Amino acid sequence: MPLKKDADKDVYFMSEALKEADAAFEEDETPVGACIIHEGKIIAKAHNQVELLKDPTAHAEMIAITQAAAHLKNWRLEGCTLYVTKEPCLMCSGAIFMSRVPRLVFGAMDEAAKGLRDLIHPGYESSLREMEIMGGVLADPCQKILKEFFKKVRGKSGN
Amino acid sequence: MPLKKDADKDVYFMSEALKEADAAFEEDETPVGACIIHEGKIIAKAHNQVELLKDPTAHAEMIAITQAAAHLKNWRLEGCTLYVTKEPCLMCSGAIFMSRVPRLVFGAMDEAAKGLRDLIHPGYESSLREMEIMGGVLADPCQKILKEFFKKVRGKSGN
Repeated sequence: MPLKKDADKDVYFMSEALKEADAAFEEDETPVGACIIHEGKIIAKAHNQVELLKDPTAHAEMIAITQAAAHLKNWRLEGCTLYVTKEPCLMCSGAIFMSRVPRLVFGAMDEAAKGLRDLIHPGYESSLREMEIMGGVLADPCQKILKEFFKKVRGKSGN
Repeated sequence: MPLKKDADKDVYFMSEALKEADAAFEEDETPVGACIIHEGKIIAKAHNQVELLKDPTAHAEMIAITQAAAHLKNWRLEGCTLYVTKEPCLMCSGAIFMSRVPRLVFGAMDEAAKGLRDLIHPGYESSLREMEIMGGVLADPCQKILKEFFKKVRGKSGN
């Protein structure tokens, strides 16, 4: 049953991305994690480091894309799958399109910020037709860690 | 006449960004340049380095944002103006929104790829209301260098 096998793989790799989200949580960064797979192996793993690096572009997906391109010595991430625990934001969606990743799997939907789904309209159909996108893999734990984080942040700020 | 003075400043800083685009052209990179201004001074200058760094995220604006955040030791680029020779792509538009740059000035429109202007619709109104955007500064030289580059690339590929 290849479909079941693929689903198992997706859950496995998303759980690897979730470990990165856990690491971000511990570092007081928004807990989003990502990993990129090539020929069945993880070639990049990263989590948000906006606060640590003081860099607004240091999202999990961006760092993972840079790592994967360095690993492949090619900025075109052909044959790769990118797993990320949260629906990519606009910046990351743009980066994913440009990196030519053919397959994207994400966990939780981002209800607050408009991101990837906002681009799924006629203007972007041609790019998206070439990319396979699946959302909702391990959505519950991916969402839960984000909710816990924002609760913690609100607690600290006294709100 | 403060308006005239501001326009002069915009032309001056865009010409600085254009120098970066020239450097990109010489390095066989898509000739786009950017600079970021804070308190009247250039705190970041960069050009596309996608091919050199083999990194699909290495657009002029992204590198400049990272540089400026490092300079200010803050990922929020408050009080800054970002100049870029071409209308930002989706990734860069997303990064610009997130970096909280309050003012964006760009040169040439990007007719091929949908970018910033595609985001100017009701869904993004709230973000954009907080950002001042001006396009078309030194649009002709900004566009010309891009056209020359793509002519050169087509020549090399024999098309």
